Amino acid sequence: MTIARGIRTPIMHRIDTAKGYAFVGGTIADDTTLPMGGQTEQILAKIDGYLAEAGTDRTKLVSASIFVTDLSKKKEMDAAWTAWLAPENLPARATVGVADLGGGALVEIVVTALQA
Amino acid sequence: MTIARGIRTPIMHRIDTAKGYAFVGGTIADDTTLPMGGQTEQILAKIDGYLAEAGTDRTKLVSASIFVTDLSKKKEMDAAWTAWLAPENLPARATVGVADLGGGALVEIVVTALQA
Amino acid sequence: MTIARGIRTPIMHRIDTAKGYAFVGGTIADDTTLPMGGQTEQILAKIDGYLAEAGTDRTKLVSASIFVTDLSKKKEMDAAWTAWLAPENLPARATVGVADLGGGALVEIVVTALQA
Repeated sequence: MTIARGIRTPIMHRIDTAKGYAFVGGTIADDTTLPMGGQTEQILAKIDGYLAEAGTDRTKLVSASIFVTDLSKKKEMDAAWTAWLAPENLPARATVGVADLGGGALVEIVVTALQA
Repeated sequence: MTIARGIRTPIMHRIDTAKGYAFVGGTIADDTTLPMGGQTEQILAKIDGYLAEAGTDRTKLVSASIFVTDLSKKKEMDAAWTAWLAPENLPARATVGVADLGGGALVEIVVTALQA
Repeated sequence: MTIARGIRTPIMHRIDTAKGYAFVGGTIADDTTLPMGGQTEQILAKIDGYLAEAGTDRTKLVSASIFVTDLSKKKEMDAAWTAWLAPENLPARATVGVADLGGGALVEIVVTALQA
């Protein structure tokens, strides 16, 4: 059994694929001065790129974990989320308000997808 | 490869099944005025329903993530958890104290199960 | 379909295996008086043991979630992490700063691996 690992950083691979699944690491926005909605849009665009690296796409998500630093702004994140995904493709999702995501990051998203 | 998605909400499907796994989204209690034990019982009853939707049940859990807002009340949650699961069916589990789960939610649970 | 469960505690099995995957529960250090780097080293040694129980090892990780109580000390955790894993074996990873991990725990790690 092999694991295909893509896009190496000093501490992780952004995406691992094995046994038909693609595991994407926690993704934050590049510009953490943006408000939560804009950060979410940046994250989702990055995730599109990571999924493409594994030959899959946003229609194949099976689960998502979303960590936010301020749950009172959840609606902004949800708006970017639902603009990104057709209703029939929404995965199982958990949303959790956490203490700190580093720098000015307001949201971090982790997803798992099928490969094909 | 197909993903079967069940119980759509505006932002997620409560349960996705694919390749023999069932992924359940983050679940909180309906009555968030209850103490942590009572909230946990409500969550576990909801998860029973979601798992049934995918033709599986609580004996088939492979992993669980439990987010709580007050770790000092963890024993209450654990009591509801161990009342729900026979010892031989306890899955791998992580418990994390987080800043905020929205409204009065004191606990949120995410599980993954085998389908059959 | 069977699930093999290993190392039972009162609230979980430390490791579940099913369909070629090994799911390891959230792991904290035994000595929570250590600084974040030392706690991380203890956790990774414990994870080595859990993975061995399932006939797999640290080269087969597909994803990791790392919860820390003080993100300003993340570099200490990262140093232990990258000392433990060869660059080519780094999995997809999420790191999240949370409110509380219980006792003096500064870091908790959850991993999923392929079995073989």
